[in-house]
Amino acid sequence: MSEIHSHHGEPALDATELSLIDRYWRAANYLSVGQIYLMDNPLLRQPLAPEHIKPRLLGHWGTTPGLNFIYAHLNRIITRRDANIIYICGPGHGGPGMVANTWLEGVYSEIYPHVSADEAGMRRLFKQFSFPGGVPSHVAPETPGSIHEGGELGYSLAHAYGAAFDNPDLVVACVVGDGEAETGPLATAWHSNKFLNPVRDGVVLPILHLNGYKIANPTVLARLSDDDLRALFTGYGYEPVFIEGHEPEAMHQLMAATLDRIFDRFADIRRAATLESPERPRWPMIILRSPKGWTGPKFVDGKMVENTWRAHQVPVDACRTNAGHRQILEDWLKSYDPHDLFDDSGALRPELKALAPKGVRRMGANPHANGGLLTRPLVTPDFRQYAVAVAEPGDREDQATLILGQYLRDVMRLNAGTANFRVFGPDETASNRLSAVFEATDRVWMAETLDSDEHLSADGRVMEILSEHMCQGWLEGYLLTGRHGFFSCYEAFIHIIDSMVSQHAKWLQVSRELEWRKPVPSLNYLLTSHVWRQDHNGFSHQDPGFVDLVANKNPEIVRVYFPPDANTLLWVGDHCLKTWDRVNVIVAGKQPEPQWLTMDEAVRHCEAGAGVWRWAGTEDGLEPDVVMACAGDVPTKETLAAIDLLRQNLPHLRIRMVNVVDLMTLQDPQHHPHGMSDAEFDRLFTSDRPVIFAYHGYPYLIHRLVYKRRNHPNFHVRGYIEQGTTTTPFDMTVLNELDRYHLAIEAIRRLPILEEKGAAVIAGFEEKLRKHHDWIREHGEDMPEVREWRWTWGRGETASG
Amino acid sequence: MSEIHSHHGEPALDATELSLIDRYWRAANYLSVGQIYLMDNPLLRQPLAPEHIKPRLLGHWGTTPGLNFIYAHLNRIITRRDANIIYICGPGHGGPGMVANTWLEGVYSEIYPHVSADEAGMRRLFKQFSFPGGVPSHVAPETPGSIHEGGELGYSLAHAYGAAFDNPDLVVACVVGDGEAETGPLATAWHSNKFLNPVRDGVVLPILHLNGYKIANPTVLARLSDDDLRALFTGYGYEPVFIEGHEPEAMHQLMAATLDRIFDRFADIRRAATLESPERPRWPMIILRSPKGWTGPKFVDGKMVENTWRAHQVPVDACRTNAGHRQILEDWLKSYDPHDLFDDSGALRPELKALAPKGVRRMGANPHANGGLLTRPLVTPDFRQYAVAVAEPGDREDQATLILGQYLRDVMRLNAGTANFRVFGPDETASNRLSAVFEATDRVWMAETLDSDEHLSADGRVMEILSEHMCQGWLEGYLLTGRHGFFSCYEAFIHIIDSMVSQHAKWLQVSRELEWRKPVPSLNYLLTSHVWRQDHNGFSHQDPGFVDLVANKNPEIVRVYFPPDANTLLWVGDHCLKTWDRVNVIVAGKQPEPQWLTMDEAVRHCEAGAGVWRWAGTEDGLEPDVVMACAGDVPTKETLAAIDLLRQNLPHLRIRMVNVVDLMTLQDPQHHPHGMSDAEFDRLFTSDRPVIFAYHGYPYLIHRLVYKRRNHPNFHVRGYIEQGTTTTPFDMTVLNELDRYHLAIEAIRRLPILEEKGAAVIAGFEEKLRKHHDWIREHGEDMPEVREWRWTWGRGETASG
Repeated sequence: MSEIHSHHGEPALDATELSLIDRYWRAANYLSVGQIYLMDNPLLRQPLAPEHIKPRLLGHWGTTPGLNFIYAHLNRIITRRDANIIYICGPGHGGPGMVANTWLEGVYSEIYPHVSADEAGMRRLFKQFSFPGGVPSHVAPETPGSIHEGGELGYSLAHAYGAAFDNPDLVVACVVGDGEAETGPLATAWHSNKFLNPVRDGVVLPILHLNGYKIANPTVLARLSDDDLRALFTGYGYEPVFIEGHEPEAMHQLMAATLDRIFDRFADIRRAATLESPERPRWPMIILRSPKGWTGPKFVDGKMVENTWRAHQVPVDACRTNAGHRQILEDWLKSYDPHDLFDDSGALRPELKALAPKGVRRMGANPHANGGLLTRPLVTPDFRQYAVAVAEPGDREDQATLILGQYLRDVMRLNAGTANFRVFGPDETASNRLSAVFEATDRVWMAETLDSDEHLSADGRVMEILSEHMCQGWLEGYLLTGRHGFFSCYEAFIHIIDSMVSQHAKWLQVSRELEWRKPVPSLNYLLTSHVWRQDHNGFSHQDPGFVDLVANKNPEIVRVYFPPDANTLLWVGDHCLKTWDRVNVIVAGKQPEPQWLTMDEAVRHCEAGAGVWRWAGTEDGLEPDVVMACAGDVPTKETLAAIDLLRQNLPHLRIRMVNVVDLMTLQDPQHHPHGMSDAEFDRLFTSDRPVIFAYHGYPYLIHRLVYKRRNHPNFHVRGYIEQGTTTTPFDMTVLNELDRYHLAIEAIRRLPILEEKGAAVIAGFEEKLRKHHDWIREHGEDMPEVREWRWTWGRGETASG
Repeated sequence: MSEIHSHHGEPALDATELSLIDRYWRAANYLSVGQIYLMDNPLLRQPLAPEHIKPRLLGHWGTTPGLNFIYAHLNRIITRRDANIIYICGPGHGGPGMVANTWLEGVYSEIYPHVSADEAGMRRLFKQFSFPGGVPSHVAPETPGSIHEGGELGYSLAHAYGAAFDNPDLVVACVVGDGEAETGPLATAWHSNKFLNPVRDGVVLPILHLNGYKIANPTVLARLSDDDLRALFTGYGYEPVFIEGHEPEAMHQLMAATLDRIFDRFADIRRAATLESPERPRWPMIILRSPKGWTGPKFVDGKMVENTWRAHQVPVDACRTNAGHRQILEDWLKSYDPHDLFDDSGALRPELKALAPKGVRRMGANPHANGGLLTRPLVTPDFRQYAVAVAEPGDREDQATLILGQYLRDVMRLNAGTANFRVFGPDETASNRLSAVFEATDRVWMAETLDSDEHLSADGRVMEILSEHMCQGWLEGYLLTGRHGFFSCYEAFIHIIDSMVSQHAKWLQVSRELEWRKPVPSLNYLLTSHVWRQDHNGFSHQDPGFVDLVANKNPEIVRVYFPPDANTLLWVGDHCLKTWDRVNVIVAGKQPEPQWLTMDEAVRHCEAGAGVWRWAGTEDGLEPDVVMACAGDVPTKETLAAIDLLRQNLPHLRIRMVNVVDLMTLQDPQHHPHGMSDAEFDRLFTSDRPVIFAYHGYPYLIHRLVYKRRNHPNFHVRGYIEQGTTTTPFDMTVLNELDRYHLAIEAIRRLPILEEKGAAVIAGFEEKLRKHHDWIREHGEDMPEVREWRWTWGRGETASG
């Protein structure tokens, strides 16, 4: 196929079309400036006075005229071709532009009837922007047609590809600002084209908007030569098409002609593609060079503004107090000739209104940007059928995530027809033991394939690239357009996307308050290859702190689960896949570990979220002397081993064992919807007995969750205290004093009544720790009594489960 | 300058040189395999037996032979040209290779004498690797010559550039694995060449190592055509040179010839460059395609291993129990012909030893990779000279970061000669009000410059790119090579580098335990544009949780400061710049805010870390009824305003005001070296009075820090509870119930003795909150009584400060 050149032949727009599209653009620009500045006098019926101007001038003008320009031209293509397009606005700071356009096309007033399509509505539109009780300054959930806030930069293109996967009829136009293009996540997201299948997926049209400046600086890409830019994006696998200029007429012609040819090209690509052996096409992209703050003030106070960083936010700012500035603003607004754009009622003139697409083709009304409208619930198998058969606690070892993989494989199969489920992971699906999914599908791969490759195909549904940012960004885009996903990751490296999950949780929090936004499937994480079994990779791979970050987010959104074995993991995984508008974090190991609960027990335990494992304790219906509590698979095993030691050495001690699966049950119900009542908490943890709590992560989190509980002063939490290296699995627990001996010693120390007997037992345990220290240094693996330890008390020694 | 082609003429190495360099490479490969597998029988004097093999086989073979190949050839260049080279090993998992090479060159035995340069030492070298009590599996701080662990991938190239800045004689060879190259941070780091000045900075030689596979997958870049790769790296601004093959002889010739020409080219570039108008050269880079697991087993159990992902870690793994596997290992080890490489004592044969560089030219001994050896302390001005003159508390407003900027400007000036201080920020130095530094220097910029640009120059010392990853990565590289830096960032977006600071803190923690590693300057953050004054950008820009992450790291490393005004910020900033091996986090606002302390008071207060502001309280030497505590500038202001309200409405109430600058003082001294004693804590916060604590961030952190204190049950903490939008500054505090009215109400509620009088006062405050709600929606800014509030009680109403 021939290269797409910039256009120099027949103009794409005749004089009428040119005039109309330019007026439409001016209307959007007028409304954008109005939102930034005005709280009254929206049609400039009177000369601008201080009281018409907002006291706090907020918003980002610089990027907005370019965004409006693109919007107008996408409208044209939609109308001409009945194209199904959503608009991802990377420079989300340009909120006024997206709001303006969705008001022009009528969507805004449909969703927010008080912001009507007339002068009164325009006045509200202006005043509400960045105003208390109004709407935010960015492209936020409140903005129709948006799935991308763009407040934190870097993720627009990954979101765009995520939206395009499995949406073969959709075109995702994605504006990438040249500031955002400097970020790492964006720089690698260009490679997403190696994962997009032209048959079954939609199209992404990246528009790199080189408007030249960031807040205070030129941008790197804007200062590259065209040759270097062309080479860079050719290297990324695209066919870059340049559109450059500042003269509106010429720019309209160029943009219209280019989009015409690009959409022809899309059609060619789609026609040529076959599912059996799709070739990776060289997708077109646009490099749009236009002035920052285009059509805004050229000079203010003698300084150049348009086409410099000074146009980034509010280009002329003392309009309330400085009559000269106010005049610049008035002249600027009038330069768009509002009465040529809006009729006397304040409505957009009909010939301009006719330019907007109709119904759900309007980008503000496209249901893909309100994905819950399109979501089909996931079909899930009965998770019980994958159950590990546990006869007695600890009588067998299994790999929890491997079992979950079998469940996920069948989720994949059951939803293959609707093509609305994908699994994501940074090259770790197999490493995390979810390989069973490869019985149902492959990794998607649109680059070169060799005979020796395994589980790679153009039609795969497992998304793997060594970039947590990409996995997260794709998944967010996929979820927000109404599909389902599952992300497995090494626990330590999920911190790489801390800021992204924070932004996604914020998005969900706000969306939930908007009735017109429908719930979307939850963001589900499986964190595995976790801190306690990164004994082989060492210290850099040991960090359980993601949960701490998540716990700071809105409690309506976040859930954290620590299933202690395979059957509980099955319940939790199944549960999470059926939830909406949540961030679910599941932490579970992949190594062979003892299995504790039957499936029936697992269901009861998980439904409660936390509970007593009566078979493990010795309280026998009486008040316990000590509570041994735990959350996490390795802490559960060490707690049970500690109880075993205590039962052997201090047979009269009354021990209660409590396991916590759903961490948020520990909070009080006022702070989290899953929180248990104080009465229930006291019933589990007692009101005055020592609680030795073995926790998977940083111990402080437990204190933070339970500090208001009556028995909190008696909580002694062990967890990861930032000690680790390449060593044996058990030594990892010893280094952090979470091992069975330390837990048992701690319990005895908290029971002064044991006196000399207790001291002797402690001495024995300390001797074991010394032996361990020497043993591993000689043998390189854990002592047999640790490696081979099994729970031997069965299920019925003291009471039935 | 002509392009560097792959070589096809005269061979670079004669037969002797070729044989020697190949043997050196084989020696490194032999030692690498030995480390992964053997705990005894290092020279294979006996047939391999199970007891010679480690019980846990750990390590990553796949990348290692390529790393060793590069190491051998860099040694050659160093020796031929007396080049000053450090080696950044992006695929840090290839630890065995770096350990092997530093042992071969003698450095390892100098640093760790028990790992001697003989058979006994070789046995220890093998056994210690990934063995309890030994060394980690990655290129960790324990590895001589390293400043980069490479456990979490993505940062090698940013580290390399950071090391090269201001080191004009240094060449930083940086191996980038093709897995790592998929990450976002790495994908943007290629653009670092726009910030490297060929006159005053060193050289970075990127070596993109395409060995084809990640853990379980091909890599994206390895499956691009050479044309696309060439275009991509040309677009990034480099001159890519391909080296491809698997036949050792041909590869040695290619690599030697290519390095010869590249180093010629470096010399040409350096000669051509002038400081006045340096042109950005097209720096050469190498694209090395070699098989994954090169020279390792070709097939195991009928499956292809070499040149597939199966060679990623341990290519043949049942060597203890499976004689066939053991034979494969023995054949593999013998394929390197160890007796041709090592003499009977186990020492490297002299003709091979002669290939290693000498002294500090050995890459393991290069002092740049142990930067503390080269550090010159920063020259700092007396921070007192920038003091804001505070006559009475709150009598003037200033912008704290603007004042700090003046101090930083002079730090920049005082160290201009030694060129060892840089300021980093993602396009935010001016936005964060540190613009005074531009009186002393510019932003560095090696791309195109226009007449309208300001503060850009090839010789600038402010590093700005819209990528927190890049700022962090460059700064880490700069610090670890012994220089000083200061990173200012929007508070919310510092989460982008959560995982990087975690890795850096781990690096410092381990380094501190190694006597031979010298302390390096601290990593200093100024987090500004913070949650309480992101009222204009809205919810996406509001996240104070970075401190929570940092607080999980080793207490010997981390410090967190909340200076409440400009003079305290000056003390804190000055203090942090003079510390070593720390991560210092400073949180301070940039907006005009009241100033509270004179410089003398600020010094006393900061030295204590926390203290009573007696002028603000009304305790008058008696026990207070209530403690109003705070940390952070906005919380301090709201707390003082709340005290003002209480003093007006309840004049007999005895109030104590406590301000915390150094957050870690709240912990107990066993948990943090800055922690205050229980006695001191009780003295400040009392043992039984209600404490209303207004905290800058998520309130749980305070509970986590003080849960062990006697008075903790009476702590009532207000902070950010994830409520926010684009609204007024004061409304942000109201939404999160951190404002003066909520604080005062909380205090009264905790004092039931106030009874009806208190209820009436509360009703009045609640009325104010209703008025606020309505007022801002009408006027768009805060009520005058809030905006214009000033502290009017002076300094001496109740007691002297």
